[in-house]
Amino acid sequence: MGGPAGGPGSAGQGGRRDAAELVVASRAGDRSATARLISLIERGGDGARQVARLTFPHGADAYTVGITGAPGAGKSTLSDRLIGEHRRLGDAIGVLAVDPSSPFSGGALLGDRVRMQDHTLDDGVFIRSMASRGHLGGLALATPDAIAVLAAAGITMVLVETVGVGQVEIEVAGATDTTVVVVNPGWGDAIQANKAGLLEVADVFVVNKADRPGAAETARDLDHMLDLGLGRAPDAWRPPIVAAVATTGTGVGEVWDAVARHRSYLGTSGQLVARRERRLVGQLREVLIRRLEQDIDRLEGGQAYLEVRRQVVDRIIDPYSGAASLLAQLPRG
Amino acid sequence: MGGPAGGPGSAGQGGRRDAAELVVASRAGDRSATARLISLIERGGDGARQVARLTFPHGADAYTVGITGAPGAGKSTLSDRLIGEHRRLGDAIGVLAVDPSSPFSGGALLGDRVRMQDHTLDDGVFIRSMASRGHLGGLALATPDAIAVLAAAGITMVLVETVGVGQVEIEVAGATDTTVVVVNPGWGDAIQANKAGLLEVADVFVVNKADRPGAAETARDLDHMLDLGLGRAPDAWRPPIVAAVATTGTGVGEVWDAVARHRSYLGTSGQLVARRERRLVGQLREVLIRRLEQDIDRLEGGQAYLEVRRQVVDRIIDPYSGAASLLAQLPRG
Repeated sequence: MGGPAGGPGSAGQGGRRDAAELVVASRAGDRSATARLISLIERGGDGARQVARLTFPHGADAYTVGITGAPGAGKSTLSDRLIGEHRRLGDAIGVLAVDPSSPFSGGALLGDRVRMQDHTLDDGVFIRSMASRGHLGGLALATPDAIAVLAAAGITMVLVETVGVGQVEIEVAGATDTTVVVVNPGWGDAIQANKAGLLEVADVFVVNKADRPGAAETARDLDHMLDLGLGRAPDAWRPPIVAAVATTGTGVGEVWDAVARHRSYLGTSGQLVARRERRLVGQLREVLIRRLEQDIDRLEGGQAYLEVRRQVVDRIIDPYSGAASLLAQLPRG
Repeated sequence: MGGPAGGPGSAGQGGRRDAAELVVASRAGDRSATARLISLIERGGDGARQVARLTFPHGADAYTVGITGAPGAGKSTLSDRLIGEHRRLGDAIGVLAVDPSSPFSGGALLGDRVRMQDHTLDDGVFIRSMASRGHLGGLALATPDAIAVLAAAGITMVLVETVGVGQVEIEVAGATDTTVVVVNPGWGDAIQANKAGLLEVADVFVVNKADRPGAAETARDLDHMLDLGLGRAPDAWRPPIVAAVATTGTGVGEVWDAVARHRSYLGTSGQLVARRERRLVGQLREVLIRRLEQDIDRLEGGQAYLEVRRQVVDRIIDPYSGAASLLAQLPRG
């Protein structure tokens, strides 16, 4: 660290500033500082932890909306329209487009971003894609950290869009205040959503491309599957199902209204606080697990491990005894 | 421990004996002692570790054959026939029927076991079902431990049969010296096997119920998919595809011959040693992970955790700092 300004790894403008300086600049409205902070988060390690420490206290200042669904469902186009919807009120909005599938954001996402060009000259819109750079599955932790960066920068509404419906995607998009699940008309789409676990995370369903055949049937299937959700408490929120054509803007206002209704429901029912608490407790657990995984990696890189490993492979000591003797040597702190 | 003979949890005959006594009895041919040792393994905790410590050195004395495939493919009937095949040579054989899906062995497996009745009066056959009692996913560790118990008891051939084709089942059945994958005739069965990851673990394919239509097509599909396995080294083992009708015994001799050929290939190529070493290294890692997970559980049960948790939920400290302060307090050893 502390290399010359504009050196390798520097994001250009402004040269090297430390995390604290970047946070000050970001809070003052310097969007390039905000982008640098998210890059630090994405990169992981001590830099990320430093940024998290500084911005975490502001994390609750942003309302977060997850947008998830199968590839091609029209998530980016919908996000694009929702940005427009929100900007009519004049408030700033951030979009994190999260791609756990590629180490660097690849084709699909890049193409999607192009569609958001309308907003690139709008200072009130901050769009950023995030890929999994460092650690495996690290986006589950990096995303809330990035949200805190945006919140600290005064952005009070953040859309979190994911690329597909893998486990990480659903985890990331589902860890928001309101989760919007986008499906398309067509036989089996509602069933796919169920299989993928989307029914459990959805607060609002959007049947996008509703000008195509089968939209009503898909909505009905979803409705039927929600009926079967017997575990639901009687006063629980029932996800509304909104038909939309994101490409033309039809129904987008209704989607945003449904999000607003859910937000209001969470607020009055006390569930917003409860949800966020659960998420933070989950984050703490996740960090603990990661830290202990790092311990294992460190152990496996050491000399003692090689000796224990040899003894286990030769069946001189069993894996339990071997593990115990290794763990006894693990430094703590 | 050390309760009165025949007390709760005692397996009847012989009253309470400690693990060392049970191992001595089991090695002397007392099959009820062998069964008790496997129960201890299944139960987990200190008892299991004690048994593992005593029997682990013998683990390499048994050759292990995994039998996996979708429910209803005829795995148990095939196992039954393979037992008969092996018993013709006079050597003892053990069968571990592993069911990760239910905490106690349930209907399907119990029904399957009934079919093995032919062998219940044969002292050279030890059949035992194992379910996941204690820990989540614990069967991945409990199975090799149970194999070592059988090996220590002088059983030199162990079949490991799993109920279905979930991730744990494939992990368990694939962690044997030779893995037999059972499919049935029918469109898509070969593709299902591919999707489930069975192609990667298979050393021998059995197209069971080969008297039904489509058997040749299924064999051809498998063959074709093996052709596509481009990653394979030129001198690598190519899984033979054997047609069988386990209910009548047709082709079962050929299945056992294919297993024998694979065993011989592993021996002469040096891969048996390499495979077993890899598995043991994997077991060591698994134990390390489990131990660290227990650390987390212990942390989360403590007073310090409640305080850190409160501070994180109130956004006073970030999860990284919170986790670091908790880990600093973790005792080691």
